[in-house]
Amino acid sequence: MPVVTVEMWEGRSRRQKRALVAAITEAMVRHAGAKPDHLHVIIHEVPKQNWGRAGRLSDGTEA
Amino acid sequence: MPVVTVEMWEGRSRRQKRALVAAITEAMVRHAGAKPDHLHVIIHEVPKQNWGRAGRLSDGTEA
Amino acid sequence: MPVVTVEMWEGRSRRQKRALVAAITEAMVRHAGAKPDHLHVIIHEVPKQNWGRAGRLSDGTEA
Amino acid sequence: MPVVTVEMWEGRSRRQKRALVAAITEAMVRHAGAKPDHLHVIIHEVPKQNWGRAGRLSDGTEA
Amino acid sequence: MPVVTVEMWEGRSRRQKRALVAAITEAMVRHAGAKPDHLHVIIHEVPKQNWGRAGRLSDGTEA
Amino acid sequence: MPVVTVEMWEGRSRRQKRALVAAITEAMVRHAGAKPDHLHVIIHEVPKQNWGRAGRLSDGTEA
Repeated sequence: MPVVTVEMWEGRSRRQKRALVAAITEAMVRHAGAKPDHLHVIIHEVPKQNWGRAGRLSDGTEA
Repeated sequence: MPVVTVEMWEGRSRRQKRALVAAITEAMVRHAGAKPDHLHVIIHEVPKQNWGRAGRLSDGTEA
Repeated sequence: MPVVTVEMWEGRSRRQKRALVAAITEAMVRHAGAKPDHLHVIIHEVPKQNWGRAGRLSDGTEA
Repeated sequence: MPVVTVEMWEGRSRRQKRALVAAITEAMVRHAGAKPDHLHVIIHEVPKQNWGRAGRLSDGTEA
Repeated sequence: MPVVTVEMWEGRSRRQKRALVAAITEAMVRHAGAKPDHLHVIIHEVPKQNWGRAGRLSDGTEA
Repeated sequence: MPVVTVEMWEGRSRRQKRALVAAITEAMVRHAGAKPDHLHVIIHEVPKQNWGRAGRLSDGTEA
């Protein structure tokens, strides 16, 4: 009965999200013994301006 | 001094959010001994297209 | 179909957690129109040594 | 460059976690265009006593 | 290899976010021994209407 | 009135956590205009066995 949260940059299509949810669910069922009925996958789309790595924002204006 | 995060579908009214925050706060004070002054409730409104359950997105176009 | 995460200090009894889960669920059903069957409440018990407020750890050894 | 957080009941073996991390990473690379090098998967193992669904704790003593 | 998530009210400028990411990264490197290359800082900007404290929403219409 | 959550490997000392909380708080006050009194920093210490990067667990037994 897990909850999986995905933090990623915004901009994926609905088609990509659908495939992603299906694949993560299958991974949870196969490898963690989860039952799909109570398995949630929540996607947080984060603007690049709100994501830092290595001390810098990811929106590319630093370069 | 807890922090409660609510992940739910977008679309609740301000009135509903206000009542929800009040009720969750009361539950925390009554049952967990929390002091309200430092108790935060954060609501993440998630588009249905970003929420999967049982391997499918929740925006209903799968049916 | 919400997911509620509670971050709080460790140390509540099972009885308190049970009452807390029931009360938060009721709040979500009443005020956010959630259906209880897919409603999860996840409690993270955080040691006071791992919780800071106002710039200080909460384990009281600062005083 | 995503971060995936998995909240699930405690008790999976290291072998299961390893397979789970590999499969989720592959799903992110294939369907979300993620580069694996900066892709993190964080597993929170939650005691059943700290997980409620449908208003009840998951440790089975409610029945 | 940490992940730092900041939940705060919406409305900070890109300049503020950039300085914030740099300062948090420096804090993690200096005090937690983190290597910056794999260190992520994710900012969730939360509308005041979605943030409760002390049982009340933060958008100021309660006063 | 922010909440900062730090996910990092377990094993930092109390002294390190104390310095980390102070430095992150200072960063939030200086760069995001936060008031320290309602500013929480929550540290989740994650076992290396529960942290994957680049598709592999971080406990080093993969090498």
